[in-house]
Amino acid sequence: MHDTDLRESRGEERMIHKLTLQTSREGFYEITSTVSQVIRASGVTDGICVVYCPHTTAGITINENADPDVVRDMLFALSKTCPERPEFRHIEGNSSAHVKASIIGSSVTVIIENGRLLLGRWQGIYFCEFDGPRTRSYYVKVISSIHPVDC
Amino acid sequence: MHDTDLRESRGEERMIHKLTLQTSREGFYEITSTVSQVIRASGVTDGICVVYCPHTTAGITINENADPDVVRDMLFALSKTCPERPEFRHIEGNSSAHVKASIIGSSVTVIIENGRLLLGRWQGIYFCEFDGPRTRSYYVKVISSIHPVDC
Amino acid sequence: MHDTDLRESRGEERMIHKLTLQTSREGFYEITSTVSQVIRASGVTDGICVVYCPHTTAGITINENADPDVVRDMLFALSKTCPERPEFRHIEGNSSAHVKASIIGSSVTVIIENGRLLLGRWQGIYFCEFDGPRTRSYYVKVISSIHPVDC
Repeated sequence: MHDTDLRESRGEERMIHKLTLQTSREGFYEITSTVSQVIRASGVTDGICVVYCPHTTAGITINENADPDVVRDMLFALSKTCPERPEFRHIEGNSSAHVKASIIGSSVTVIIENGRLLLGRWQGIYFCEFDGPRTRSYYVKVISSIHPVDC
Repeated sequence: MHDTDLRESRGEERMIHKLTLQTSREGFYEITSTVSQVIRASGVTDGICVVYCPHTTAGITINENADPDVVRDMLFALSKTCPERPEFRHIEGNSSAHVKASIIGSSVTVIIENGRLLLGRWQGIYFCEFDGPRTRSYYVKVISSIHPVDC
Repeated sequence: MHDTDLRESRGEERMIHKLTLQTSREGFYEITSTVSQVIRASGVTDGICVVYCPHTTAGITINENADPDVVRDMLFALSKTCPERPEFRHIEGNSSAHVKASIIGSSVTVIIENGRLLLGRWQGIYFCEFDGPRTRSYYVKVISSIHPVDC
Protein backbone atom coordinates (compact mmCIF):
# COMPACT_ATOMS: atom_id res chain seq x y z
CA MET A 1 0.00 0.00 0.00
CA HIS A 2 2.95 2.29 0.56
CA ASP A 3 5.57 3.31 -1.89
CA THR A 4 8.69 5.33 -1.30
CA ASP A 5 10.08 7.90 -3.67
CA LEU A 6 13.46 8.98 -2.37
CA ARG A 7 13.88 12.41 -3.90
CA GLU A 8 17.55 12.59 -3.13
CA SER A 9 20.31 10.13 -2.49
CA ARG A 10 19.94 7.70 0.39
CA GLY A 11 21.44 8.58 3.74
CA GLU A 12 21.37 12.32 3.09
CA GLU A 13 19.79 14.39 5.82
CA ARG A 14 18.48 16.87 3.27
CA MET A 15 16.35 14.12 1.74
CA ILE A 16 12.56 14.43 1.74
CA HIS A 17 10.72 11.13 1.64
CA LYS A 18 7.47 11.04 -0.31
CA LEU A 19 5.12 8.16 0.51
CA THR A 20 1.82 7.27 -1.12
CA LEU A 21 -1.23 5.26 -0.08
CA GLN A 22 -4.62 4.33 -1.49
CA THR A 23 -7.57 5.25 0.72
CA SER A 24 -11.26 4.41 1.11
CA ARG A 25 -14.08 6.94 1.71
CA GLU A 26 -12.95 7.74 5.27
CA GLY A 27 -10.42 6.11 7.52
CA PHE A 28 -7.35 6.30 9.73
CA TYR A 29 -4.37 4.52 8.11
CA GLU A 30 -1.49 3.66 10.37
CA ILE A 31 1.85 4.69 8.86
CA THR A 32 4.13 4.18 11.88
CA SER A 33 6.23 1.37 10.44
CA THR A 34 6.76 3.21 7.15
CA VAL A 35 7.90 6.35 8.97
CA SER A 36 10.19 4.22 11.16
CA GLN A 37 11.80 2.75 8.06
CA VAL A 38 12.39 6.23 6.67
CA ILE A 39 14.11 7.27 9.91
CA ARG A 40 16.36 4.20 9.80
CA ALA A 41 17.22 4.82 6.14
CA SER A 42 18.10 8.46 6.89
CA GLY A 43 20.87 7.45 9.28
CA VAL A 44 19.88 10.30 11.62
CA THR A 45 20.23 9.26 15.27
CA ASP A 46 19.04 12.36 17.17
CA GLY A 47 16.63 15.03 16.04
CA ILE A 48 13.02 15.39 14.98
CA CYS A 49 10.91 14.35 12.01
CA VAL A 50 7.94 16.10 10.47
CA VAL A 51 5.23 13.92 8.88
CA TYR A 52 3.32 16.22 6.54
CA CYS A 53 0.06 15.87 4.58
CA PRO A 54 -0.11 18.00 1.38
CA HIS A 55 -3.90 17.55 0.99
CA THR A 56 -6.70 19.78 2.31
CA THR A 57 -9.26 17.09 3.16
CA ALA A 58 -6.89 14.77 5.03
CA GLY A 59 -4.54 15.13 8.00
CA ILE A 60 -1.98 13.43 10.22
CA THR A 61 -2.46 12.51 13.88
CA ILE A 62 -0.98 10.37 16.65
CA ASN A 63 -3.24 8.14 18.72
CA GLU A 64 -3.71 4.61 20.06
CA ASN A 65 -2.84 1.70 17.79
CA ALA A 66 -3.67 -1.20 20.16
CA ASP A 67 -7.48 -1.35 19.87
CA PRO A 68 -8.72 -0.53 16.33
CA ASP A 69 -12.02 0.62 17.86
CA VAL A 70 -10.28 3.77 19.09
CA VAL A 71 -9.71 5.29 15.65
CA ARG A 72 -13.11 4.00 14.52
CA ASP A 73 -14.73 5.87 17.45
CA MET A 74 -12.64 8.96 16.69
CA LEU A 75 -13.82 9.01 13.08
CA PHE A 76 -17.41 8.64 14.26
CA ALA A 77 -17.00 11.42 16.83
CA LEU A 78 -15.53 13.78 14.21
CA SER A 79 -18.51 13.10 11.90
CA LYS A 80 -20.85 14.13 14.73
CA THR A 81 -18.77 17.16 15.76
CA CYS A 82 -18.15 18.39 12.20
CA PRO A 83 -21.18 17.41 10.09
CA GLU A 84 -22.04 18.76 6.66
CA ARG A 85 -24.32 21.78 7.17
CA PRO A 86 -27.02 23.29 4.91
CA GLU A 87 -25.37 26.71 5.31
CA PHE A 88 -22.11 25.55 3.67
CA ARG A 89 -21.44 27.20 0.28
CA HIS A 90 -18.35 25.37 -1.02
CA ILE A 91 -19.57 23.86 -4.28
CA GLU A 92 -17.71 20.56 -3.90
CA GLY A 93 -19.87 19.70 -0.89
CA ASN A 94 -16.98 18.50 1.26
CA SER A 95 -16.51 21.38 3.70
CA SER A 96 -16.84 19.05 6.69
CA ALA A 97 -13.77 17.19 5.42
CA HIS A 98 -11.86 20.50 5.21
CA VAL A 99 -12.81 21.38 8.80
CA LYS A 100 -11.75 17.95 10.06
CA ALA A 101 -8.41 18.34 8.27
CA SER A 102 -7.64 21.63 10.06
CA ILE A 103 -8.87 20.37 13.43
CA ILE A 104 -6.66 17.26 13.21
CA GLY A 105 -3.80 19.19 11.62
CA SER A 106 -1.61 18.91 8.55
CA SER A 107 1.42 17.43 10.31
CA VAL A 108 2.88 15.85 13.41
CA THR A 109 6.39 16.29 14.77
CA VAL A 110 8.05 13.29 16.44
CA ILE A 111 11.34 13.20 18.35
CA ILE A 112 14.12 10.87 17.15
CA GLU A 113 16.32 9.27 19.82
CA ASN A 114 19.07 6.74 19.16
CA GLY A 115 17.90 6.35 15.58
CA ARG A 116 14.29 5.57 16.51
CA LEU A 117 10.96 7.40 16.80
CA LEU A 118 10.37 8.32 20.45
CA LEU A 119 6.68 7.35 20.52
CA GLY A 120 4.70 6.44 23.63
CA ARG A 121 3.88 2.80 24.31
CA TRP A 122 0.40 2.94 22.75
CA GLN A 123 1.05 5.61 20.11
CA GLY A 124 0.87 5.13 16.37
CA ILE A 125 1.06 7.70 13.55
CA TYR A 126 -2.05 7.88 11.36
CA PHE A 127 -2.87 9.32 7.94
CA CYS A 128 -6.48 10.51 8.32
CA GLU A 129 -8.64 10.38 5.19
CA PHE A 130 -11.83 12.45 5.31
CA ASP A 131 -12.76 12.58 1.60
CA GLY A 132 -11.64 9.47 -0.29
CA PRO A 133 -11.31 7.16 -1.98
CA ARG A 134 -8.14 8.69 -3.40
CA THR A 135 -4.47 8.12 -4.03
CA ARG A 136 -2.84 10.20 -1.34
CA SER A 137 0.70 11.15 -0.46
CA TYR A 138 2.56 12.38 2.59
CA TYR A 139 6.11 13.59 3.25
CA VAL A 140 8.62 12.76 5.95
CA LYS A 141 11.35 15.31 6.63
CA VAL A 142 14.15 14.56 9.10
CA ILE A 143 16.06 17.27 10.99
CA SER A 144 19.19 16.12 12.83
CA SER A 145 20.32 17.74 16.07
CA ILE A 146 23.84 16.43 15.63
CA HIS A 147 26.08 18.25 13.20
CA PRO A 148 29.34 16.45 12.63
CA VAL A 149 32.25 18.74 11.90
CA ASP A 150 34.41 16.87 9.43
CA CYS A 151 37.68 18.74 9.62
CA MET B 1 -1.32 44.63 5.17
CA HIS B 2 1.87 42.85 6.08
CA ASP B 3 5.02 44.34 7.42
CA THR B 4 8.32 42.64 8.08
CA ASP B 5 10.58 43.36 11.00
CA LEU B 6 13.82 41.53 10.45
CA ARG B 7 15.14 41.13 13.96
CA GLU B 8 18.58 40.13 12.82
CA SER B 9 20.65 40.68 9.74
CA ARG B 10 19.32 39.41 6.43
CA GLY B 11 20.36 36.00 5.19
CA GLU B 12 21.12 34.69 8.66
CA GLU B 13 19.54 31.38 9.52
CA ARG B 14 19.16 32.43 13.13
CA MET B 15 16.83 35.21 12.06
CA ILE B 16 13.25 35.27 13.28
CA HIS B 17 10.84 37.12 11.04
CA LYS B 18 8.01 39.02 12.69
CA LEU B 19 5.04 39.87 10.48
CA THR B 20 1.96 41.90 11.34
CA LEU B 21 -1.56 42.17 9.93
CA GLN B 22 -4.76 44.05 10.66
CA THR B 23 -7.82 41.82 11.16
CA SER B 24 -11.62 42.10 11.22
CA ARG B 25 -13.95 40.48 13.79
CA GLU B 26 -13.30 36.92 12.52
CA GLY B 27 -11.58 35.64 9.44
CA PHE B 28 -8.95 33.48 7.79
CA TYR B 29 -6.15 35.61 6.29
CA GLU B 30 -3.93 33.94 3.75
CA ILE B 31 -0.24 34.54 4.47
CA THR B 32 1.33 32.05 2.05
CA SER B 33 3.06 34.58 -0.20
CA THR B 34 4.50 36.48 2.76
CA VAL B 35 5.90 33.27 4.28
CA SER B 36 7.31 32.31 0.87
CA GLN B 37 9.11 35.65 0.66
CA VAL B 38 10.60 35.09 4.10
CA ILE B 39 11.92 31.68 3.03
CA ARG B 40 13.50 33.17 -0.10
CA ALA B 41 15.08 35.99 1.92
CA SER B 42 16.52 33.49 4.41
CA GLY B 43 18.57 31.75 1.74
CA VAL B 44 17.78 28.37 3.30
CA THR B 45 17.29 25.72 0.62
CA ASP B 46 16.41 22.60 2.65
CA GLY B 47 14.79 22.37 6.06
CA ILE B 48 11.57 23.31 7.79
CA CYS B 49 9.86 26.50 8.83
CA VAL B 50 7.59 27.14 11.80
CA VAL B 51 4.83 29.75 11.39
CA TYR B 52 3.85 30.75 14.93
CA CYS B 53 0.97 32.79 16.39
CA PRO B 54 1.77 34.52 19.73
CA HIS B 55 -1.91 35.28 20.49
CA THR B 56 -4.40 33.18 22.49
CA THR B 57 -7.55 33.92 20.47
CA ALA B 58 -6.05 33.31 17.03
CA GLY B 59 -4.23 30.45 15.34
CA ILE B 60 -2.46 29.22 12.21
CA THR B 61 -3.73 26.54 9.83
CA ILE B 62 -3.21 25.12 6.36
CA ASN B 63 -6.20 24.55 4.07
CA GLU B 64 -7.58 25.18 0.58
CA ASN B 65 -6.91 28.55 -1.04
CA ALA B 66 -8.68 27.98 -4.38
CA ASP B 67 -12.34 28.51 -3.39
CA PRO B 68 -12.77 31.24 -0.72
CA ASP B 69 -16.00 29.53 0.38
CA VAL B 70 -13.91 26.79 2.03
CA VAL B 71 -12.46 28.98 4.78
CA ARG B 72 -15.81 30.80 5.09
CA ASP B 73 -17.49 27.42 5.70
CA MET B 74 -14.74 26.42 8.14
CA LEU B 75 -15.24 29.59 10.19
CA PHE B 76 -18.99 28.95 10.24
CA ALA B 77 -18.49 25.31 11.27
CA LEU B 78 -16.16 26.33 14.12
CA SER B 79 -18.76 28.82 15.38
CA LYS B 80 -21.31 25.98 15.53
CA THR B 81 -18.88 23.47 17.07
CA CYS B 82 -17.42 25.91 19.62
CA PRO B 83 -20.18 28.40 20.56
CA GLU B 84 -20.15 30.75 23.52
CA ARG B 85 -21.83 28.91 26.42
CA PRO B 86 -23.74 30.27 29.44
CA GLU B 87 -21.56 28.14 31.74
CA PHE B 88 -18.37 29.97 30.70
CA ARG B 89 -16.81 32.05 33.49
CA HIS B 90 -13.98 33.93 31.75
CA ILE B 91 -14.87 37.56 32.32
CA GLU B 92 -13.80 38.78 28.88
CA GLY B 93 -16.57 36.71 27.30
CA ASN B 94 -14.40 35.29 24.53
CA SER B 95 -13.79 31.72 25.71
CA SER B 96 -15.09 30.29 22.43
CA ALA B 97 -12.25 32.15 20.66
CA HIS B 98 -9.73 30.59 23.07
CA VAL B 99 -11.11 27.10 22.37
CA LYS B 100 -10.97 27.64 18.60
CA ALA B 101 -7.35 28.83 18.92
CA SER B 102 -6.29 25.60 20.67
CA ILE B 103 -8.30 23.37 18.33
CA ILE B 104 -6.74 24.98 15.25
CA GLY B 105 -3.32 25.23 16.88
CA SER B 106 -0.74 27.93 17.53
CA SER B 107 1.59 26.98 14.69
CA VAL B 108 2.15 24.98 11.52
CA THR B 109 5.38 23.42 10.35
CA VAL B 110 6.11 23.37 6.61
CA ILE B 111 8.93 21.58 4.79
CA ILE B 112 11.38 23.63 2.67
CA GLU B 113 12.72 21.99 -0.48
CA ASN B 114 15.01 23.66 -3.02
CA GLY B 115 14.41 27.02 -1.37
CA ARG B 116 10.61 26.79 -1.56
CA LEU B 117 7.70 25.83 0.70
CA LEU B 118 6.67 22.23 -0.06
CA LEU B 119 2.91 22.85 0.02
CA GLY B 120 0.29 20.72 -1.69
CA ARG B 121 -1.33 21.98 -4.88
CA TRP B 122 -4.39 23.46 -3.14
CA GLN B 123 -2.79 24.38 0.18
CA GLY B 124 -2.39 27.86 1.58
CA ILE B 125 -1.24 29.02 5.03
CA TYR B 126 -3.81 31.01 7.01
CA PHE B 127 -3.73 33.29 10.02
CA CYS B 128 -7.05 32.57 11.78
CA GLU B 129 -8.62 35.48 13.68
CA PHE B 130 -11.32 34.51 16.20
CA ASP B 131 -11.55 37.70 18.28
CA GLY B 132 -10.75 40.80 16.26
CA PRO B 133 -10.58 43.42 15.01
CA ARG B 134 -6.98 43.71 16.15
CA THR B 135 -3.45 44.36 15.01
CA ARG B 136 -1.92 40.88 15.10
CA SER B 137 1.54 39.46 14.59
CA TYR B 138 3.05 36.11 13.73
CA TYR B 139 6.58 34.75 13.53
CA VAL B 140 8.38 32.68 10.93
CA LYS B 141 11.40 30.68 12.07
CA VAL B 142 13.52 28.75 9.55
CA ILE B 143 15.56 25.66 10.46
CA SER B 144 18.04 24.47 7.84
CA SER B 145 18.89 20.81 7.40
CA ILE B 146 22.11 21.64 5.58
CA HIS B 147 25.06 22.70 7.69
CA PRO B 148 27.99 23.89 5.60
CA VAL B 149 31.36 23.21 7.15
CA ASP B 150 33.52 26.16 6.18
CA CYS B 151 37.01 24.82 6.75
CA MET C 1 5.15 18.10 40.76
CA HIS C 2 7.75 17.97 38.04
CA ASP C 3 10.85 15.90 37.85
CA THR C 4 13.59 16.02 35.29
CA ASP C 5 15.39 13.02 33.92
CA LEU C 6 18.27 14.26 31.82
CA ARG C 7 18.89 11.35 29.50
CA GLU C 8 22.22 12.67 28.34
CA SER C 9 24.84 14.98 29.73
CA ARG C 10 23.86 18.54 30.53
CA GLY C 11 24.41 21.22 27.92
CA GLU C 12 24.29 18.81 25.01
CA GLU C 13 21.97 19.78 22.19
CA ARG C 14 21.20 16.12 21.50
CA MET C 15 19.69 15.79 24.94
CA ILE C 16 16.01 14.89 25.34
CA HIS C 17 14.44 16.06 28.56
CA LYS C 18 11.81 13.83 30.13
CA LEU C 19 9.49 15.48 32.64
CA THR C 20 6.76 13.90 34.75
CA LEU C 21 3.67 15.18 36.53
CA GLN C 22 0.80 13.79 38.60
CA THR C 23 -2.66 14.63 37.27
CA SER C 24 -6.28 14.66 38.44
CA ARG C 25 -9.28 13.36 36.47
CA GLU C 26 -9.16 16.18 33.91
CA GLY C 27 -7.21 19.38 33.82
CA PHE C 28 -4.81 21.76 32.09
CA TYR C 29 -1.43 21.87 33.87
CA GLU C 30 0.82 24.78 33.07
CA ILE C 31 4.37 23.64 32.30
CA THR C 32 5.82 26.89 30.94
CA SER C 33 8.38 27.49 33.69
CA THR C 34 9.63 23.90 33.53
CA VAL C 35 10.08 24.09 29.76
CA SER C 36 11.84 27.46 30.17
CA GLN C 37 14.28 25.88 32.63
CA VAL C 38 15.01 23.09 30.17
CA ILE C 39 15.80 25.65 27.46
CA ARG C 40 18.16 27.52 29.76
CA ALA C 41 19.89 24.29 30.80
CA SER C 42 20.35 23.30 27.15
CA GLY C 43 22.45 26.36 26.41
CA VAL C 44 20.76 26.73 23.03
CA THR C 45 20.22 30.38 22.15
CA ASP C 46 18.41 30.23 18.80
CA GLY C 47 16.22 27.48 17.41
CA ILE C 48 12.98 25.69 18.22
CA CYS C 49 11.78 23.28 20.88
CA VAL C 50 9.21 20.53 20.60
CA VAL C 51 7.12 19.73 23.71
CA TYR C 52 5.76 16.24 23.15
CA CYS C 53 3.13 14.11 24.93
CA PRO C 54 3.67 10.33 24.63
CA HIS C 55 0.13 9.47 25.85
CA THR C 56 -3.03 8.93 23.78
CA THR C 57 -5.58 10.48 26.16
CA ALA C 58 -3.64 13.68 26.88
CA GLY C 59 -2.15 16.47 24.78
CA ILE C 60 -0.15 19.69 24.76
CA THR C 61 -1.50 23.14 23.92
CA ILE C 62 -0.67 26.84 24.22
CA ASN C 63 -3.27 29.26 25.57
CA GLU C 64 -3.88 32.04 28.08
CA ASN C 65 -2.29 31.76 31.53
CA ALA C 66 -3.53 35.02 33.07
CA ASP C 67 -7.12 34.10 33.99
CA PRO C 68 -7.46 30.45 35.16
CA ASP C 69 -11.11 30.51 34.02
CA VAL C 70 -9.91 30.34 30.40
CA VAL C 71 -8.57 26.79 30.61
CA ARG C 72 -11.48 25.80 32.84
CA ASP C 73 -13.90 27.03 30.13
CA MET C 74 -11.85 25.27 27.43
CA LEU C 75 -12.07 21.95 29.28
CA PHE C 76 -15.82 22.42 29.68
CA ALA C 77 -16.23 23.31 26.00
CA LEU C 78 -14.27 20.22 24.93
CA SER C 79 -16.52 18.01 27.10
CA LYS C 80 -19.56 19.44 25.28
CA THR C 81 -17.97 19.23 21.83
CA CYS C 82 -16.52 15.72 22.32
CA PRO C 83 -18.87 13.84 24.68
CA GLU C 84 -18.89 10.09 25.27
CA ARG C 85 -21.38 8.58 22.80
CA PRO C 86 -23.47 5.39 23.02
CA GLU C 87 -22.18 4.33 19.59
CA PHE C 88 -18.55 4.17 20.81
CA ARG C 89 -17.13 0.62 20.86
CA HIS C 90 -13.72 1.05 22.52
CA ILE C 91 -13.95 -1.20 25.56
CA GLU C 92 -12.09 1.10 27.93
CA GLY C 93 -14.90 3.66 27.62
CA ASN C 94 -12.60 6.65 27.17
CA SER C 95 -12.94 7.37 23.45
CA SER C 96 -13.90 10.99 24.11
CA ALA C 97 -10.50 11.46 25.79
CA HIS C 98 -8.79 10.00 22.70
CA VAL C 99 -10.68 12.42 20.42
CA LYS C 100 -9.79 15.40 22.60
CA ALA C 101 -6.12 14.34 22.54
CA SER C 102 -6.02 14.37 18.72
CA ILE C 103 -8.01 17.61 18.43
CA ILE C 104 -5.65 19.39 20.85
CA GLY C 105 -2.58 17.66 19.41
CA SER C 106 0.33 15.63 20.73
CA SER C 107 2.88 18.44 20.66
CA VAL C 108 3.58 22.13 20.30
CA THR C 109 6.60 23.76 18.70
CA VAL C 110 7.93 26.98 20.23
CA ILE C 111 10.63 29.29 18.84
CA ILE C 112 13.75 29.97 20.94
CA GLU C 113 15.29 33.47 20.69
CA ASN C 114 18.26 34.72 22.71
CA GLY C 115 18.06 31.64 24.93
CA ARG C 116 14.36 32.10 25.78
CA LEU C 117 10.98 30.79 24.66
CA LEU C 118 9.42 33.30 22.23
CA LEU C 119 5.90 33.12 23.69
CA GLY C 120 3.23 35.80 23.37
CA ARG C 121 2.46 38.03 26.35
CA TRP C 122 -0.52 35.95 27.56
CA GLN C 123 0.66 32.54 26.38
CA GLY C 124 1.48 29.57 28.57
CA ILE C 125 2.23 25.94 27.64
CA TYR C 126 -0.21 23.39 29.04
CA PHE C 127 -0.20 19.63 29.54
CA CYS C 128 -3.86 18.64 28.96
CA GLU C 129 -5.12 15.64 30.93
CA PHE C 130 -8.35 14.10 29.62
CA ASP C 131 -8.31 10.70 31.39
CA GLY C 132 -6.57 10.89 34.77
CA PRO C 133 -5.68 10.64 37.52
CA ARG C 134 -2.34 9.32 36.31
CA THR C 135 1.38 9.80 36.47
CA ARG C 136 2.16 11.35 33.11
CA SER C 137 5.30 12.32 31.27
CA TYR C 138 6.25 14.65 28.45
CA TYR C 139 9.42 15.31 26.49
CA VAL C 140 11.21 18.50 25.50
CA LYS C 141 13.53 18.35 22.50
CA VAL C 142 15.63 21.36 21.50
CA ILE C 143 16.84 21.99 17.94
CA SER C 144 19.45 24.71 17.53
CA SER C 145 19.63 26.87 14.42
CA ILE C 146 23.22 27.83 15.15
CA HIS C 147 25.90 25.30 14.31
CA PRO C 148 29.31 26.35 15.52
CA VAL C 149 32.16 25.17 13.34
CA ASP C 150 35.01 24.39 15.71
CA CYS C 151 38.00 24.34 13.43
